[in-house]
Amino acid sequence: MKNKRKIINDPVYGFITIRHPQVLTLIDHPWFQRLRRIAQLGLSHLVYPGALHNRFQHAIGAMHLMQSAIDELRLKEIHITADEELGLLTAVLLHDIGHGPFSHALEFTLVPGLHHEHISSLMMHRLNEESGGQLDLAIRIFSDTYPKKFLHQLVSSQLDMDRLDYLARDSFFSGVVEGQVGSERILKMLDVVDDQLVVEEKGIYSIEKFIVARRFMYWQVYLHHAVLSAEFMLVNVLRRARLLAREGHELFATPALKFFLVNDITDESFRTDHRALSHYSALDDFDITASLKVWQSHDDKVLSTLASMILNRRLFKIELQSVPFAPERVEAERYRLCERLSLTPSEAGYFVIHDKVDNRAYNQLSDNIRIKRKDGRVEDAALVSDHLNIAVLNRKVEKYFLAVAG
Amino acid sequence: MKNKRKIINDPVYGFITIRHPQVLTLIDHPWFQRLRRIAQLGLSHLVYPGALHNRFQHAIGAMHLMQSAIDELRLKEIHITADEELGLLTAVLLHDIGHGPFSHALEFTLVPGLHHEHISSLMMHRLNEESGGQLDLAIRIFSDTYPKKFLHQLVSSQLDMDRLDYLARDSFFSGVVEGQVGSERILKMLDVVDDQLVVEEKGIYSIEKFIVARRFMYWQVYLHHAVLSAEFMLVNVLRRARLLAREGHELFATPALKFFLVNDITDESFRTDHRALSHYSALDDFDITASLKVWQSHDDKVLSTLASMILNRRLFKIELQSVPFAPERVEAERYRLCERLSLTPSEAGYFVIHDKVDNRAYNQLSDNIRIKRKDGRVEDAALVSDHLNIAVLNRKVEKYFLAVAG
Amino acid sequence: MKNKRKIINDPVYGFITIRHPQVLTLIDHPWFQRLRRIAQLGLSHLVYPGALHNRFQHAIGAMHLMQSAIDELRLKEIHITADEELGLLTAVLLHDIGHGPFSHALEFTLVPGLHHEHISSLMMHRLNEESGGQLDLAIRIFSDTYPKKFLHQLVSSQLDMDRLDYLARDSFFSGVVEGQVGSERILKMLDVVDDQLVVEEKGIYSIEKFIVARRFMYWQVYLHHAVLSAEFMLVNVLRRARLLAREGHELFATPALKFFLVNDITDESFRTDHRALSHYSALDDFDITASLKVWQSHDDKVLSTLASMILNRRLFKIELQSVPFAPERVEAERYRLCERLSLTPSEAGYFVIHDKVDNRAYNQLSDNIRIKRKDGRVEDAALVSDHLNIAVLNRKVEKYFLAVAG
Amino acid sequence: MKNKRKIINDPVYGFITIRHPQVLTLIDHPWFQRLRRIAQLGLSHLVYPGALHNRFQHAIGAMHLMQSAIDELRLKEIHITADEELGLLTAVLLHDIGHGPFSHALEFTLVPGLHHEHISSLMMHRLNEESGGQLDLAIRIFSDTYPKKFLHQLVSSQLDMDRLDYLARDSFFSGVVEGQVGSERILKMLDVVDDQLVVEEKGIYSIEKFIVARRFMYWQVYLHHAVLSAEFMLVNVLRRARLLAREGHELFATPALKFFLVNDITDESFRTDHRALSHYSALDDFDITASLKVWQSHDDKVLSTLASMILNRRLFKIELQSVPFAPERVEAERYRLCERLSLTPSEAGYFVIHDKVDNRAYNQLSDNIRIKRKDGRVEDAALVSDHLNIAVLNRKVEKYFLAVAG
Repeated sequence: MKNKRKIINDPVYGFITIRHPQVLTLIDHPWFQRLRRIAQLGLSHLVYPGALHNRFQHAIGAMHLMQSAIDELRLKEIHITADEELGLLTAVLLHDIGHGPFSHALEFTLVPGLHHEHISSLMMHRLNEESGGQLDLAIRIFSDTYPKKFLHQLVSSQLDMDRLDYLARDSFFSGVVEGQVGSERILKMLDVVDDQLVVEEKGIYSIEKFIVARRFMYWQVYLHHAVLSAEFMLVNVLRRARLLAREGHELFATPALKFFLVNDITDESFRTDHRALSHYSALDDFDITASLKVWQSHDDKVLSTLASMILNRRLFKIELQSVPFAPERVEAERYRLCERLSLTPSEAGYFVIHDKVDNRAYNQLSDNIRIKRKDGRVEDAALVSDHLNIAVLNRKVEKYFLAVAG
Repeated sequence: MKNKRKIINDPVYGFITIRHPQVLTLIDHPWFQRLRRIAQLGLSHLVYPGALHNRFQHAIGAMHLMQSAIDELRLKEIHITADEELGLLTAVLLHDIGHGPFSHALEFTLVPGLHHEHISSLMMHRLNEESGGQLDLAIRIFSDTYPKKFLHQLVSSQLDMDRLDYLARDSFFSGVVEGQVGSERILKMLDVVDDQLVVEEKGIYSIEKFIVARRFMYWQVYLHHAVLSAEFMLVNVLRRARLLAREGHELFATPALKFFLVNDITDESFRTDHRALSHYSALDDFDITASLKVWQSHDDKVLSTLASMILNRRLFKIELQSVPFAPERVEAERYRLCERLSLTPSEAGYFVIHDKVDNRAYNQLSDNIRIKRKDGRVEDAALVSDHLNIAVLNRKVEKYFLAVAG
Repeated sequence: MKNKRKIINDPVYGFITIRHPQVLTLIDHPWFQRLRRIAQLGLSHLVYPGALHNRFQHAIGAMHLMQSAIDELRLKEIHITADEELGLLTAVLLHDIGHGPFSHALEFTLVPGLHHEHISSLMMHRLNEESGGQLDLAIRIFSDTYPKKFLHQLVSSQLDMDRLDYLARDSFFSGVVEGQVGSERILKMLDVVDDQLVVEEKGIYSIEKFIVARRFMYWQVYLHHAVLSAEFMLVNVLRRARLLAREGHELFATPALKFFLVNDITDESFRTDHRALSHYSALDDFDITASLKVWQSHDDKVLSTLASMILNRRLFKIELQSVPFAPERVEAERYRLCERLSLTPSEAGYFVIHDKVDNRAYNQLSDNIRIKRKDGRVEDAALVSDHLNIAVLNRKVEKYFLAVAG
Repeated sequence: MKNKRKIINDPVYGFITIRHPQVLTLIDHPWFQRLRRIAQLGLSHLVYPGALHNRFQHAIGAMHLMQSAIDELRLKEIHITADEELGLLTAVLLHDIGHGPFSHALEFTLVPGLHHEHISSLMMHRLNEESGGQLDLAIRIFSDTYPKKFLHQLVSSQLDMDRLDYLARDSFFSGVVEGQVGSERILKMLDVVDDQLVVEEKGIYSIEKFIVARRFMYWQVYLHHAVLSAEFMLVNVLRRARLLAREGHELFATPALKFFLVNDITDESFRTDHRALSHYSALDDFDITASLKVWQSHDDKVLSTLASMILNRRLFKIELQSVPFAPERVEAERYRLCERLSLTPSEAGYFVIHDKVDNRAYNQLSDNIRIKRKDGRVEDAALVSDHLNIAVLNRKVEKYFLAVAG
């Protein structure tokens, strides 16, 4: 089995062929299989019921696009060695390996201050040790320390295979057709000039379309007001659970979750306490949801109410605006809740959320998309596009929200 | 909110509009929300990674088709009252309310001898009491005690909205395009003659296509050999857990699951012990998977090995054939495992499964599809189709399988 | 047949139901059937082989969207009478009835100075006379002389059913997925405020997407450089044929085409010479192509060469730039052709085309898309969109091109 | 241009890449470009308005599938040389080169007794001469005189690339989703055993689906009653035109069509009169339709009435049954028409058609689909399929029809 190619049925791309035994071995690793239990879009399925797809699918989809990109570039006589090919496939396959439960939702709650990309890097190094250094090249490409820069850009940049897959996939499963991108066309337009990934000039309209589709998905799906509400409610219920756990209250939790509720786990812990990574790699959406279910009948009113509201989709009402809400308004909402739900002010704080989001929460627009003109010059896409104001699109948009239990 | 129509984005049909406040209230009930946590296709996602859709979506999709069918029939001047419309929508929405974890996989394991349809009926009656009798008509249609028979046929028959939705949905999410059915065309061909649901003659090719697509899905998805393997492994790990629990071994389990591991719950229990239904309605895929995860490090080798194999997709190798496997062969496999894994013969029994499946496991072909000839006569589809041998297709096909830990 | 509803299979929308006998009668009229023989996208199929769809399909598709829009608006309690409904369906069905061969390609060649919309209006009035005034209301809506202004906006405005259908349809048949628009979502967001068609605020992203998709289609399909080349070659071959015909050369042509080659037909002719409309309504793509085929073996070298080049897709090479080409360059190209093809300078002029196009050639952006804020205020979409610079998109973009026989 | 790969946008498959300059040269040939003017499905667009696709697209689509099949087979280590690859691509590209106007509709009318495949063969040999023998290998594969038999089977057999493309394409453009086939899955299942094209056993359900989809398309599209009606009307109008032409009546026709109306062209003519092939290769749908349009105002009532009925879609009413219609019935219909339309009996004969069709009109089921069992044995698909009665499906079904002017 291991030494023949394997075909996976994917509703987004049809059939995905895996040609490399080493890639199959990686997919079979428990850490990679864990991604089956982490929803790509956290709690978005409460708004878009189809959006149940997971990180496992996404990683495999991104790998599939990577294989296509490699094939296309080679047709244009861009040299990519067999080792580099394997490095690229491995790097993109593992780029999200460190994601925690519900993808982004709990990123800073369970392990405060620790970005999932940092954990991904830790896990890749550990896997590399296990495999006797087979992932060396993948790690160098991933961390951008490999000389051929365009390889890293395929893994992580404005137009990387990660983004191309997640837009296509999130759009497909949520049913939001406006997020569809013509990945196939974009892949055919890729080229490399001076070790930089570029897009042929005639692809400029596809690039504009891609950028607009991405923005569409941000506001319509990723930052949908009800999704925001659900995810911040989840943050609050876990904050409450941690408080209770540390105060010594009896509290059901799966062992992996309990570890993170009871202990203060930091960047430092991952270096000094082997249990940190071990428990982290055992943690997924199922620990959270199974625990929430039990918490519904806990004595603590804050915990049980929040757990029940999330599970039964009774979400906080949310308002968004471009300036912060007045402190008096926030205070008034909290006060009203104290009365209505017979809560202390500190308890009521769990039911009123004032925060902000921006459409750059998930993506870093630090680098540009480069266009290769017909005459060979390479220019920033924002300059080439004489119609669409890409510069405007790139602007970070912030929105403040106030979410209150209804 | 409750008194305006609501629109749901569904990747299969686009937008689904819910027009009735009473339907919205039902959807908000925790028992209905529980269906969000029950995978429509059990463990099929281990083979078809996209197949993560749940019973919640399916029930709403079937309700959407029901609304379309009602609209079409009314255009043909078939009389359906407003109450009957609501009854139909409610009946189809609740037809699967009694499903347990992983849909069919554990149907006879957690509550031996109790069919999910029996539990659905129990739960509907309970909901009816809660709502002061609002579901009376829905229950009469569902249980086929309402005089207009064709209403029941829309909910449960060879061509009901349940089947039309699950084929379309399972095909969509698994990526198995061969299972696609032209639901839209079939709905437009529906009619009623002598209180029987019929299909206009020119729809005969669509009916043939529907039957072939369904059979395709059975063998390619529902009874796919690796899916069978996974689901029987799940049955075995729960059998083992129950044994350990009853023998008094320490065993992690969520409270709802523990109830069914420790107690013998039967049809009788549901009548006499209110805890039975209460725990059942709290049980879903998350209880099972979260427990499996912890069991991976249990002392009992059978339990931990099976749990780990399922979670990490190391499935039993399976063979299928049309006659039973020789007892000697089965015995030999078990013996080999005793040696290889240092197990007692009874322990080894958990790693060798000999059983049979048929393509009627999920559907009852007791009634026929009726075709309305151009001259008004109504005939069995199998007679009208002069090409396709529907009779042959309806034949039950049995396959024996032998699944063994690899 | 005439008094029952009819169902049409449409690959873009699935099934289209026609509910009104009067609409069916109109569709059966020879003038409407003529639209079957006029390609929606002229010669674009030379670049996008699938783009063979015709005006007939498009008109029916737009009517289908109109029916959906009416249904949606009524659900929002916007009052539309049965007569207005029929007027809307009729108006959109006939909005393109006056199109000539290859849609836009020959618009100003066969009947100089006469816009297709003028002829549509003429033909509608004639049909109205034939039907004893049944189209009165449709014509008033079409010509914006009916008091309820939003009805006209459904037929002709920035967001009319014409545009929604042609984007969806052209994208579908050309295979340019980037042009897909979420018509369904936009229709669900339509509303009417103060007799103006508006879009609910939450539809702003769909509107942005729609505008970007349209621009994409302009540059990628409608004004694709090879399509431009082919269409201007067609203009030139007809100019040549007319010259030859008037100089008395023998020239094959179908009777309808011959009429327009030999005579000077103007706006005036349509009023004074009944043959003008009669021949015009007999003219379609087939007259042109059948004649081109015969012209391939004509003695006149310009005529035969151009005809053969179009039919066998040997298109002029074309360059586009944002400023005019230098007259010296154009002259030089012509001179080179004189030599290479042994032509006189005036003959060579048929093989060198210098002209300009803009992305407003087909659409008039005179009116705005109006957004209905959550608080009820109505604002211009360009103001509501804080991200996309719709104002920039609306700017007319001109491009100069130089096309030369290769 | 000629020596780089070219990409074609195809709505069915997305992007089609053409890698071989020789293939591009062939596509540019006027004979191949002629296929742009021959509708794949004749007059089916009168029933399915989207079905306007042409032979050009189909030939390129079949070539695309051939390239995929070659790639797949090579992955399975089936040896196919570079020359054989080019031969296969060329053979499938040209397999329909000899089709006349409206594909099958006029096959036996313009050139009685001459099958389009015979003319395809003639044209291929002529092209081979022109190219100095470059098509030798393609012709040997096409005519099954090349030693490797499986190559011919890819071009022409039960599961050839022609069939796979036309089912997918006809289904796509007609909007009849039931005809969709999973070409991608079938291609991945192809293999070669003992120089025979086979399908891996696990592909058996796809094969069944393919066969059912094909039959669906026959009855729902290819032999749809209104399509039959239209095509036989077309045969009759041409029979009438030929009679008038030979009797010396003035009759408009394009030169290419006139040649076939005035002369008796047979198999023999193609060998002895170079004008036969020359005119044939100039003939396409446009000659017929442009002439029909003029015939609408011809003095001959039969000619003008039939021409007008076809163009304006006033089709004969048609009945189908499994036994011949009684001669008395046919006679009575003719008699009624004499009266109603003031026709002589022989004239009335053009308005009453009694004939039969079968679902094997287009396909020859002489060879079988072979399945490769898991143990390596090769068996007939009809034997492997224990569910679907493929044997029944293969049975020829004949239907008699009576079509009469309404």
